[in-house]
Amino acid sequence: METVEEETLYGSLRLPHRPEGKLVLLVLDGVGDIATAATGYRTPLEAAATPNLDELAQASAMGRMIPVLPGITPGSGPGHLGLFGYDPALFRVDRGVIEALGVGIDLRTDDVAARANFCTVNAEGVVTDRRAGRIDSGLNRILCQKLGSIGRIGETEVVVRRGRSHRFVVVFRGGGIAGPLPDSDPHGTGLPVRPIVAQSRERKVRRAAEVIARFYRQAMPLLAEDYPANGFLLRGIGSLPRIPGFEERFRLRAAAIAAYPMYRGLAQLIGMRTLKEARDIGQQFRQYLDEFDGFDYFFIHVKGTDMAGEDGDFDGKVAVIEAVDQALPILLQKRPLVLAITADHSTPVPLKSHSWHPQPVLLNSPVSGSDGLSRFTETCANRGSLGVFQSKYLIRLMMANAGLFGKFGA
Amino acid sequence: METVEEETLYGSLRLPHRPEGKLVLLVLDGVGDIATAATGYRTPLEAAATPNLDELAQASAMGRMIPVLPGITPGSGPGHLGLFGYDPALFRVDRGVIEALGVGIDLRTDDVAARANFCTVNAEGVVTDRRAGRIDSGLNRILCQKLGSIGRIGETEVVVRRGRSHRFVVVFRGGGIAGPLPDSDPHGTGLPVRPIVAQSRERKVRRAAEVIARFYRQAMPLLAEDYPANGFLLRGIGSLPRIPGFEERFRLRAAAIAAYPMYRGLAQLIGMRTLKEARDIGQQFRQYLDEFDGFDYFFIHVKGTDMAGEDGDFDGKVAVIEAVDQALPILLQKRPLVLAITADHSTPVPLKSHSWHPQPVLLNSPVSGSDGLSRFTETCANRGSLGVFQSKYLIRLMMANAGLFGKFGA
Repeated sequence: METVEEETLYGSLRLPHRPEGKLVLLVLDGVGDIATAATGYRTPLEAAATPNLDELAQASAMGRMIPVLPGITPGSGPGHLGLFGYDPALFRVDRGVIEALGVGIDLRTDDVAARANFCTVNAEGVVTDRRAGRIDSGLNRILCQKLGSIGRIGETEVVVRRGRSHRFVVVFRGGGIAGPLPDSDPHGTGLPVRPIVAQSRERKVRRAAEVIARFYRQAMPLLAEDYPANGFLLRGIGSLPRIPGFEERFRLRAAAIAAYPMYRGLAQLIGMRTLKEARDIGQQFRQYLDEFDGFDYFFIHVKGTDMAGEDGDFDGKVAVIEAVDQALPILLQKRPLVLAITADHSTPVPLKSHSWHPQPVLLNSPVSGSDGLSRFTETCANRGSLGVFQSKYLIRLMMANAGLFGKFGA
Repeated sequence: METVEEETLYGSLRLPHRPEGKLVLLVLDGVGDIATAATGYRTPLEAAATPNLDELAQASAMGRMIPVLPGITPGSGPGHLGLFGYDPALFRVDRGVIEALGVGIDLRTDDVAARANFCTVNAEGVVTDRRAGRIDSGLNRILCQKLGSIGRIGETEVVVRRGRSHRFVVVFRGGGIAGPLPDSDPHGTGLPVRPIVAQSRERKVRRAAEVIARFYRQAMPLLAEDYPANGFLLRGIGSLPRIPGFEERFRLRAAAIAAYPMYRGLAQLIGMRTLKEARDIGQQFRQYLDEFDGFDYFFIHVKGTDMAGEDGDFDGKVAVIEAVDQALPILLQKRPLVLAITADHSTPVPLKSHSWHPQPVLLNSPVSGSDGLSRFTETCANRGSLGVFQSKYLIRLMMANAGLFGKFGA
């Protein structure tokens, strides 16, 4: 059955009532891992002491999820879109768009957004450090003011918004432009900054390429004296895609509790309310308690597991998992009707990167049933009743557990 | 791959010979369950003493099946169509059709069939009891004779066939009519009987709505003195769908051994021969022995597990499972070449209703292999080699085990 037909079927079975409790998706970004000789054939989930997760696991159904298709490693965008019930192979979002939304820019349909970072270039225009020595946020602010002073390229307004360290966002607004455009980032050192060239013959896209090329010509001289941040790279240049809103699609009022711009942006893209940035996982769970009455669905995002995975830091990943476990009783003070704990993808410590390995998922509700498994780990999840399934179905299982679907046929 | 393409592929691989033994699908309706604290974290399959099933399990492959799609709870129709190898999301059958076939009416393509039941209405036409106090079958017979006396509405013949208790079936025959039409049943008390209104602009459907409205106007006065059965409700009003026959599709001569009209009707819809109604599971298995030579495929349906699940009767469900286990040696007197034991869906005791939880499946043949699992239970099935798969593939696995498919490609 094709995806669109499936969505129509699910939509036709959605009962009109609001859920009688909360649906909570707790994402431990990249928590899934692999057991190799290098890690003593244990994963961080297996090595961590997690009494609260263990107790939950014993009353839950488990399984593993494929983010996109077998063998495909997703970025954070596709990984999360799947979790939110959007087939990531069908709904594609440029990273610039997500980032711009995440830093609070209210993107419009005729905007082109780019993720940007300061870099170091030599006299020949060759990139020698793609992150400009990770300059501090204070210098970033000054440099973004310089670039922001350009203000306008022809009929197109230019908005520059600083991020952390060497990162920032540029939005080109209006003047009949559209994405996507290829990166100016050569994705390696020793290579020149790539000129922005449209790969489509579409008028708006070609116009956007011209605007950005002109912006580059004006901006580079402004940074000439700011070594090591004497250049910048653009990535994920694109326009707002057409994606049906989460509330419209699932009839659930949704809130996102996430600290990083990327995840806030993704949530905003599908119309979730983003709550204010929390300091730590405990505070995130307390935000859930505070906002309990206002929403049906909460997306809570924990970044630390992914960062530790990317760093190849086994003990660091264990520590984040244990911190989540220790904070879990805060969340459970107001027990969700349906709680799913999982990742958007695996970020195995031995790989130091995202991967295609199916991530474990735990699903707990009064009617989830128990698979009789003792812990939330990869090997336990392998023996769960949910099997191995595509993550785009997770929201459907959560909704079924919340009693939101009528029976199909008599 | 789309469903239709899959079917073409399977069809192209079907070898021409008849199977060298019997394929038996034993459906323990709704046998799948969930382990919750309320049931001591055990399921009926786990609690039941099943020495014969245990022995079979040890020599079998196991897995779990998704009736339609993740999170979707099927009615009995879609549940069984999946087991018979028809994608239930594509082949849809109105309940009235299934019920009419089940009570032995030889439906034609220009018939419109409705499932009906007597109800109680007050002076304002509001339903006060949707089942008319579950009147006995004797009174049902008298009331159906009254309604049957109407005989004809214009060019359309009206056939009324009594069922058990308050249930009956009405078939509107000929006169250029077609379904589907919405229920007159308001699906709740305190609401008026709904007028029959076509939701399509199709001429035949609108004509059917008029015929049924006229039938209502003539029928209601006939029941006026028969309180509490002074009204009736129609549900699942529809016409015979176009479904390829089972024998044509799989090249297997099939027999159904099922006591309830619904399941007999489903089997007839796809051209299975229905054997006469048996008294109990032992007699059903003896029918299989008696009819052994006449068919390639036997569908044996056990209703008790589902009924106990719907009643929330844990011990009752255990008792039915144990009765099946005790009778199993009768079936095995003439050992099927391929035996699949499963359900059409789960009917968990804690839910008292059908559910979306994948049902366990056991597949036994000389070439099924053994998964080294000790019992036919949900948790054992979670660890089986078949994994979690859509139930529409079960027939393909049974056929493969019977040696009915050639190799795909060289």
